[in-house]
Amino acid sequence: MTTYFAAHSAGAARRIRIFPDRFSNRQTLVAANPLDQRLRDSSEQFEADLFEWLRIPSISSDPVHREDVRAAGNWIAQKLSAGGLEVETIETDGHPIIFAQTPAIPGAPVALVYGHYDVQPVEPLDQWKSGPFAPEIRDGNIYARGATDDKGQLLTHVESVLTWLASGEPLPLQVKFLIEGEEEVGSANLERLLPERAEQFAADVIVISDSSQYAEGQPAITYGLRGIVTFELRIDGPRQDLHSGSFGGAVTNPAIALSRLLASVVDDHGVIQIPGFYDDCQPLSECEREQLAELPQSDELFAEQIGVPALGGEAHYTALERRWARPTYDVNGLTSGHQGEGSKTIIPAQASAKISFRLVPDQDPKKIAAAFEAFLKSKLPPSVHMKLTSDHGAPGMLSRLDSPYITAAQQAIEHAFGTAPVMIREGGSIPIVTRFQEVLKADCLLLGWGLNDDNAHSPNEKFRREDFHRGIAASACLWCELGKIPK
Amino acid sequence: MTTYFAAHSAGAARRIRIFPDRFSNRQTLVAANPLDQRLRDSSEQFEADLFEWLRIPSISSDPVHREDVRAAGNWIAQKLSAGGLEVETIETDGHPIIFAQTPAIPGAPVALVYGHYDVQPVEPLDQWKSGPFAPEIRDGNIYARGATDDKGQLLTHVESVLTWLASGEPLPLQVKFLIEGEEEVGSANLERLLPERAEQFAADVIVISDSSQYAEGQPAITYGLRGIVTFELRIDGPRQDLHSGSFGGAVTNPAIALSRLLASVVDDHGVIQIPGFYDDCQPLSECEREQLAELPQSDELFAEQIGVPALGGEAHYTALERRWARPTYDVNGLTSGHQGEGSKTIIPAQASAKISFRLVPDQDPKKIAAAFEAFLKSKLPPSVHMKLTSDHGAPGMLSRLDSPYITAAQQAIEHAFGTAPVMIREGGSIPIVTRFQEVLKADCLLLGWGLNDDNAHSPNEKFRREDFHRGIAASACLWCELGKIPK
Repeated sequence: MTTYFAAHSAGAARRIRIFPDRFSNRQTLVAANPLDQRLRDSSEQFEADLFEWLRIPSISSDPVHREDVRAAGNWIAQKLSAGGLEVETIETDGHPIIFAQTPAIPGAPVALVYGHYDVQPVEPLDQWKSGPFAPEIRDGNIYARGATDDKGQLLTHVESVLTWLASGEPLPLQVKFLIEGEEEVGSANLERLLPERAEQFAADVIVISDSSQYAEGQPAITYGLRGIVTFELRIDGPRQDLHSGSFGGAVTNPAIALSRLLASVVDDHGVIQIPGFYDDCQPLSECEREQLAELPQSDELFAEQIGVPALGGEAHYTALERRWARPTYDVNGLTSGHQGEGSKTIIPAQASAKISFRLVPDQDPKKIAAAFEAFLKSKLPPSVHMKLTSDHGAPGMLSRLDSPYITAAQQAIEHAFGTAPVMIREGGSIPIVTRFQEVLKADCLLLGWGLNDDNAHSPNEKFRREDFHRGIAASACLWCELGKIPK
Repeated sequence: MTTYFAAHSAGAARRIRIFPDRFSNRQTLVAANPLDQRLRDSSEQFEADLFEWLRIPSISSDPVHREDVRAAGNWIAQKLSAGGLEVETIETDGHPIIFAQTPAIPGAPVALVYGHYDVQPVEPLDQWKSGPFAPEIRDGNIYARGATDDKGQLLTHVESVLTWLASGEPLPLQVKFLIEGEEEVGSANLERLLPERAEQFAADVIVISDSSQYAEGQPAITYGLRGIVTFELRIDGPRQDLHSGSFGGAVTNPAIALSRLLASVVDDHGVIQIPGFYDDCQPLSECEREQLAELPQSDELFAEQIGVPALGGEAHYTALERRWARPTYDVNGLTSGHQGEGSKTIIPAQASAKISFRLVPDQDPKKIAAAFEAFLKSKLPPSVHMKLTSDHGAPGMLSRLDSPYITAAQQAIEHAFGTAPVMIREGGSIPIVTRFQEVLKADCLLLGWGLNDDNAHSPNEKFRREDFHRGIAASACLWCELGKIPK
């Protein structure tokens, strides 16, 4: 059903309209929304709700926080239920999934809002200016783990629907919520559940706010996501740490063996060396490259913002192309031997690395995982053992851009933000999105209310206070616009 | 004064006698020592003393254990003082140095026993079968951190001297003790003190037991040590951890940059790539290589003992040559990004490694450090920052083998162990040894009572109970034999 952006076809390529306002002479298309005043009146309550939710440390990857994750799920379930939605808490082998819906509206489309109530780990804790679970407003930003990823962004849709329901005005379409607690650990249980519950979850359009605007003051709709596949690689050498004097020279050092393996994955030009790695990559068309090049962007400013002396990466591509539309290889963590103060002259018994690859459309995570393992094995010295485990994988995706849902979203965003959105890709992965498209056969609207410097996955995660409220306003307007589309 | 083994001179090379018993028709040369019975009678007390000392967690690299380190120094100072020695506790900027001496014996030589009361860190703690500071005897071994390195080995000389003093027999020479608390962190304060106190510490021969026998049942005298130089290398990338999806591809990953630097130091054949690294290495003579090859040794057994599928290391050298007489490059630890359970898809802000090189005679640690830094800088991408700090360095050493002190030690060991010692090198470093030779102009006797599988620097460090007592007996006999050498 979904027609992907086909890079090999000039006709299809021309459908990419990164700057939609260049293709129309629209003024603001949407008149004042009937809910706008009510939304303004409720802004304090919206923030109080968000703060309450952010205080729950729902780190899904850490077994210690198991009950906290459940509590965060219960919180949103109760919120939806109290607002009049029919709510079901679906138990899984892991953290529960919350499903909720408003009544069906005959003749109007069905929108499914997807989001997650789990958050990333918080270390290094000493780099947070305020506690990750003690939300605080500073300089117009709400600081907390989960502020932007994804509690804050998801809550915009919950608040807009609850406001519609409380307003007395009829909500112009049916809205369903599918909210999971395992997005940060791979969404395995939701993926498993999806085919079984396809009828319950059925929708015409899926709405997800778990990404970013293009820049401050420039909202965006995301038409592409990268895929991902992650690994843990462990090298085992001697049975235990050895004295580097008595044994050094005759024993392969696992930390060096690991470094050599990790180094061999990429060459001096940032090109990944795994045989076949790029075979299935959907290449960027000249048309798309030209439009991407027109987006306002400065490598120098970008480098300065993140605090590096210069950007790095694959040769022959711009920084934006490398972040949005090229696959990557990253080492997320290293562990071996002595990590404390001072020196300890040992050959460590083992060394391990956390590794992630970001993938682009048409790369298959399973195929990449197999190629990576074969590559590592071909490079492994016989004097150490290797163990490679793969955590989770998801392919990348590209949305169709010619749907009425996109137009509706453009109008809602322009109404709330005062600026027409640009169409962008996103380097991150929302693994479940591809599965939604496959199983539910619905279009996806990726409406990011965050900013690139929101520190998702890092210390001092934040969400701009104003964007939280604009997100609610855009969402409230989106239901209006989507409701006009004939089923 | 010291004549080193000169590999370039065939005449000098011939002086290396790895199997001394092949060069004489000696039977056991030393008659029963007058102290032998008394030593046997005191064996329980010796163990009680050692256990008491081992219980003090004197980890010199960890500021938390500062007072424990001092307590371990006090313990040995009081032991020596109670035994009748004149004792001085020398305060330093770090941990104190204990100096003690018996009365001067006119016409007899002076022996200086050097040892250390500090120990290595103990992690990973979960791999210890009994507490590192709760000494325990199992299968004829004394298990504890410091059991072999160096409290147990050093105590053999203390107990032998105290037994001589308590016996009524006149100790045949003057014995001095120089016992420091910073051997495991580079001996910087002792090094500084050495020239100032050269007269106080003056000796004809220096006795050190901080190494190993060649094998169980085959005692040894060590004629060569490797040098060392250690580093911490840190790579700094972005100001903080970044989301590997939103930023991955455009930012140099510090963990990958570190891996690539670490990997570039050595090639596929184990040859170190730093320009000039091997320039000053004293090469192994054919004569020494032939004799080393005759030492009983099995690569398969060695690999099995340490639990690796195969040995590794520099091409064109045997495992023994690589451990004793070739320089090495080891990574002692790696730290970066996410090290907990599960995955966290970040580009870590920084990555660091602990690094050690073992050096062979004539390599200068300062020159190697400079060459290493230049090499790393030449390989560093412009998109990250690098910080290299050097912890401590010491050159390697080779002893003269034609001294009467060596003969005295051979006889004492043969008496106590029932087997003539072989002459060996040791891959480890005792940085202070070279400084002793330079400053005190005295010969060094490196008499290792330990075994190679004693787990020095690793979990479950041990010292064979029998070797503790044989070490005491050999030491008691050594004073006798050294006393016969005219001053």
